[in-house]
Amino acid sequence: MLAFAAVVALGTALLSLPAATTTGEPAELVTALFTATSAVCVTGLVVVDTPTHWSTFGEVVILCLIQVGGLGIMTIASLLGLLVSRRFGLRLQLTAQTETKALDLGDVRRVVRGVALVSLAFELVTSLVLAARFAIGYDYGVADALYHGVFHSVSAFNNAGFALFPDNLVGFATDPWICVPIAAAVLAGGLGFPVWVEVWRRTRERRRKARWSLHTKITVVTSGVLLVVGVAVVTLAEWNNPATLGRFDAGGSLVAGFFHGVMPRTAGFNSIDVGQMESGTLLINDILMFIGGGSASTAGGIKVTTFALLAFVIYAEIRGEPSVHVMGRKLPATAQRQALSVALLSVGAVVAGTLLLLTLTPFRLEFVLFEAISAFSTAGMTTGITAEVGTAGHVVLLVLMFLGRVGPITLASALALRERSRRYELPEERPIVG
Amino acid sequence: MLAFAAVVALGTALLSLPAATTTGEPAELVTALFTATSAVCVTGLVVVDTPTHWSTFGEVVILCLIQVGGLGIMTIASLLGLLVSRRFGLRLQLTAQTETKALDLGDVRRVVRGVALVSLAFELVTSLVLAARFAIGYDYGVADALYHGVFHSVSAFNNAGFALFPDNLVGFATDPWICVPIAAAVLAGGLGFPVWVEVWRRTRERRRKARWSLHTKITVVTSGVLLVVGVAVVTLAEWNNPATLGRFDAGGSLVAGFFHGVMPRTAGFNSIDVGQMESGTLLINDILMFIGGGSASTAGGIKVTTFALLAFVIYAEIRGEPSVHVMGRKLPATAQRQALSVALLSVGAVVAGTLLLLTLTPFRLEFVLFEAISAFSTAGMTTGITAEVGTAGHVVLLVLMFLGRVGPITLASALALRERSRRYELPEERPIVG
Ligand SMILES: [K+]
Ligand SMILES: [K+]
Repeated sequence: MLAFAAVVALGTALLSLPAATTTGEPAELVTALFTATSAVCVTGLVVVDTPTHWSTFGEVVILCLIQVGGLGIMTIASLLGLLVSRRFGLRLQLTAQTETKALDLGDVRRVVRGVALVSLAFELVTSLVLAARFAIGYDYGVADALYHGVFHSVSAFNNAGFALFPDNLVGFATDPWICVPIAAAVLAGGLGFPVWVEVWRRTRERRRKARWSLHTKITVVTSGVLLVVGVAVVTLAEWNNPATLGRFDAGGSLVAGFFHGVMPRTAGFNSIDVGQMESGTLLINDILMFIGGGSASTAGGIKVTTFALLAFVIYAEIRGEPSVHVMGRKLPATAQRQALSVALLSVGAVVAGTLLLLTLTPFRLEFVLFEAISAFSTAGMTTGITAEVGTAGHVVLLVLMFLGRVGPITLASALALRERSRRYELPEERPIVG
Repeated sequence: MLAFAAVVALGTALLSLPAATTTGEPAELVTALFTATSAVCVTGLVVVDTPTHWSTFGEVVILCLIQVGGLGIMTIASLLGLLVSRRFGLRLQLTAQTETKALDLGDVRRVVRGVALVSLAFELVTSLVLAARFAIGYDYGVADALYHGVFHSVSAFNNAGFALFPDNLVGFATDPWICVPIAAAVLAGGLGFPVWVEVWRRTRERRRKARWSLHTKITVVTSGVLLVVGVAVVTLAEWNNPATLGRFDAGGSLVAGFFHGVMPRTAGFNSIDVGQMESGTLLINDILMFIGGGSASTAGGIKVTTFALLAFVIYAEIRGEPSVHVMGRKLPATAQRQALSVALLSVGAVVAGTLLLLTLTPFRLEFVLFEAISAFSTAGMTTGITAEVGTAGHVVLLVLMFLGRVGPITLASALALRERSRRYELPEERPIVG
């Protein structure tokens, strides 16, 4: 958490240099701070237009901040997940089984190396595909194509949503050669490191018949369901909206609908004007962003496992089961309470942020709620009001981004690690519920 | 649940008679159905103006529906609460301790008599105070003053929110002699029958030093906190709003602010224009209405105990406690899961209703969300769009009212009563949360 703050501070300092802007005038402090926070938290909300306001040096600073933020969040979350698993005597697939309940330097080194390798592999492939498309389809020079390929690939895998075009990716809305690789990188980054480690292990060790871990199964299945819901809602609800999908032909609509169905997990690129979406689409987007991506991934939100656990608890309760069984495994009661705490405290943070923004700005609930959830879940999509909420509004968004980035992970791990036993028990009493 | 539907059907039939309207023209079916549902569910949303559209006969039908709905909901919820308590071998203060785990006719008779007595006592006192004020302060004739006293008293104690004035209670916004008795009756009705039984028992039996039940303590404390929050928010946030409190002097503002701080628990009268409130006030109102009032009361929502239980679970989790202790008692794990299920399924119902209304009507999220929560929690406050959402919108609101009225109680009891034991256990596995 402190490390995050330190990187934000360094980024702010670099972006405040005259060399970071196109005009050579140093950026205002709040602009630099907001951009640095947005990059390190891989949120992607911007108060100034990236290519217009920042010089190439500034862009490279942003790129580095995104990369450091993405690697950092995956590493920290993976290590905390590992610590929690060991504490409970359960094995997480991240490293070979060890005897200790604590983390040693070897664990840290292995996780850092693994996270870096996974990130680089996905970013390299995506960069090359994008660079090829920029060079062939849009006549960019080789250096320029590579630069654009690398920037958007890193921004995509780290679910950052920064782009080098004033209108983000609106210009490529119907080009599957740009949109599909970016969407794929977003999904890969959003599944999370633990999932990729398990995939890698199984491929290398040829243990194809071994059981997949509960974490991986829940993450992949829930992400898949949310992806289908997202794509279906955006495509169907916006099909006839002349301000969004209505202006494309069927093929273009499918590309843009697919792209925007992927984005709430929580990349935040946009290829259509989010502010022009139907109210219902915005509300579904709110929910999808709030849920977010996988644990120990580059995505934000309360995480798909948290959401799925709550759904399983309710399902078990409706069936009258005394314990919660998921895919052949029993969920510990403490994990259920942790999911509940993470979800409800996150609701609290979003509601508080929304209230403050409603009070501080003239915008209506629809847009303010979207902005607050987008900041908290580090999605970074916007209906277009980010630049106009004023300095106080920027501070609120800034706090939401930071809280949303480090909050759920830290909270969940802290809750799991702080569990202690009680020396005495009180008699039970049951108030009436409902 | 079927009994509720039957009373709604009967009410619809009576309100469809020509004698029920002022014009002598029979009302449209959807109008009669909506009004009957709104009265039986004690919601108070109206599609036509009560005194203008309905004749005195129609008003009396509405009054009877409110009374039957209020008595019915308190009786059913009390009996279900009793059944659940006995099933778990715990004693609820509703009746003398018995040996059986089921309900017998004697229990039913005692609860019905108790509910009727409590309702009548509060309604009688409130009626007399209101009638005196109408007669003395507004020069009503005796019969008229009594009729207005009885109608508004019944409407208040049952948290219905129907009034006999075209602008609801806006004409009395600064009159404490009307507003305070109505607010008091609303609060009394919203605490719930089990609380009043316990108060009555202790007074009669002079067991003043005995322990209050956990249910009563949680209900009273949480209701008190929500009341203070509601009054403070409305009074402070609207103080300078020229469309709401801004047009009153300080004393009048305090009366109206207090009145509207009480209303989200879930009476739904209004003495200022809710549609003109600040966005932030509306959002706080949304939350307060969603929480609602006490269990087995005339108020709706997920209930203050459900809300408080979730807060206690999170508090215990943050403190790292393995079990949840509340005021010297331990909360059963099953009660925690039931509270979670009731709250999250209610969120689901509200979100689904909001999405449908957003799709079916041209109104913006702020107003549609308020309307959906108001219908679901049977609060009946409105920003003014109820009459204009169209037939499809009315059906959505109608379903929300019905679901919100019978849903949480039935769900919570069904969950509690359906609990069964598991014959085998699976190994535990813990996915990463957050
Ligand atoms: K993002
Ligand atoms: K009501």
